[in-house]
Amino acid sequence: MNIQLEIPQWLLASLQELPKAIDDVQARVQMILDLARLNLKHETGGPFAAGVFEKQTGKIVAIGVNLVVATHCSSAHAEIVAISLAQQQLRSYDLGGAGMPHHQLVVNAQPCAMCVGAIHWSGLRSVIFAATREQVEKLTGFDEGPVHPNWRKELERRGIEVESGILENEACQAFREFSSSGGLVYNSRATGS
Amino acid sequence: MNIQLEIPQWLLASLQELPKAIDDVQARVQMILDLARLNLKHETGGPFAAGVFEKQTGKIVAIGVNLVVATHCSSAHAEIVAISLAQQQLRSYDLGGAGMPHHQLVVNAQPCAMCVGAIHWSGLRSVIFAATREQVEKLTGFDEGPVHPNWRKELERRGIEVESGILENEACQAFREFSSSGGLVYNSRATGS
Repeated sequence: MNIQLEIPQWLLASLQELPKAIDDVQARVQMILDLARLNLKHETGGPFAAGVFEKQTGKIVAIGVNLVVATHCSSAHAEIVAISLAQQQLRSYDLGGAGMPHHQLVVNAQPCAMCVGAIHWSGLRSVIFAATREQVEKLTGFDEGPVHPNWRKELERRGIEVESGILENEACQAFREFSSSGGLVYNSRATGS
Repeated sequence: MNIQLEIPQWLLASLQELPKAIDDVQARVQMILDLARLNLKHETGGPFAAGVFEKQTGKIVAIGVNLVVATHCSSAHAEIVAISLAQQQLRSYDLGGAGMPHHQLVVNAQPCAMCVGAIHWSGLRSVIFAATREQVEKLTGFDEGPVHPNWRKELERRGIEVESGILENEACQAFREFSSSGGLVYNSRATGS
């Protein structure tokens, strides 16, 4: 009896077709936005994707998408999938350990309450996201949970840089399309679903 | 390439020896405290354990322990392991879905920032914990991350009850022993390790 999160075939295939590294930061975000759209298209999960990169070289260490429904696991957010794949591949729970390069997380949306905490524990040194929490909640109806009101400062004082605003409009457009296509929104009892 | 979290043999064996259900709430907490100690004794992870119970019947749905180091996965906290095992067993990402009984999480310590968020998404209807965050941080040196200052109210307004204070001293004593035995404390860069 183990916990197993199966990575979709299309994502594994994508990984083969992607370049080994992406130099430009905006191009990294664009790649993640494309994966979020593909996750919806392939009906393997919610409209969220994330990638772990080596900040300096742009090397793609791991990519993840939201797999909550398919894997029967509410913790299988894109960020946690990408971080876990990176850590298991590097055989370390700490992406910031001795001898590690600066590992950067790129996400199409601001991390939820759980994922902010997951970033705290991960050893990541920086996070880049596109759409804000307010945009995600307004456009989709997801309740992103009790995120600390000063979460950016809280991460930054722990040595984790946070950057946002890259391709925000493109990210929002995908959420609009998700919503108008009747995408599944799962929330805790008090807030819907 | 999947994410796999291997559950230790001793935990699977424990599950066979435990009763099917535990009626008394304090006895549920005691069982979780015992598992947290066993996780240290077997050197399979940090001093944390959690269980998902059916609140009314006391049925043990799933038990989890901290597996961060052993599984190379910083998200493999006891709560996430227990919640994920319960969800995969019930084949649903939502422990509070239609037709589900009230599912209760019992933990030996206050959930960290990540686990508060994980509880939000899980469908759990209540949480019981023993030691507080302040006690854990003081006694062990772990940095529990950016927990929302009003996390209890934030969960409660989402329909998730929070209860604490049961066997708090016993839980703290185990953290003292963990600390004095030189247990491994892993934190983000700015705060140590």
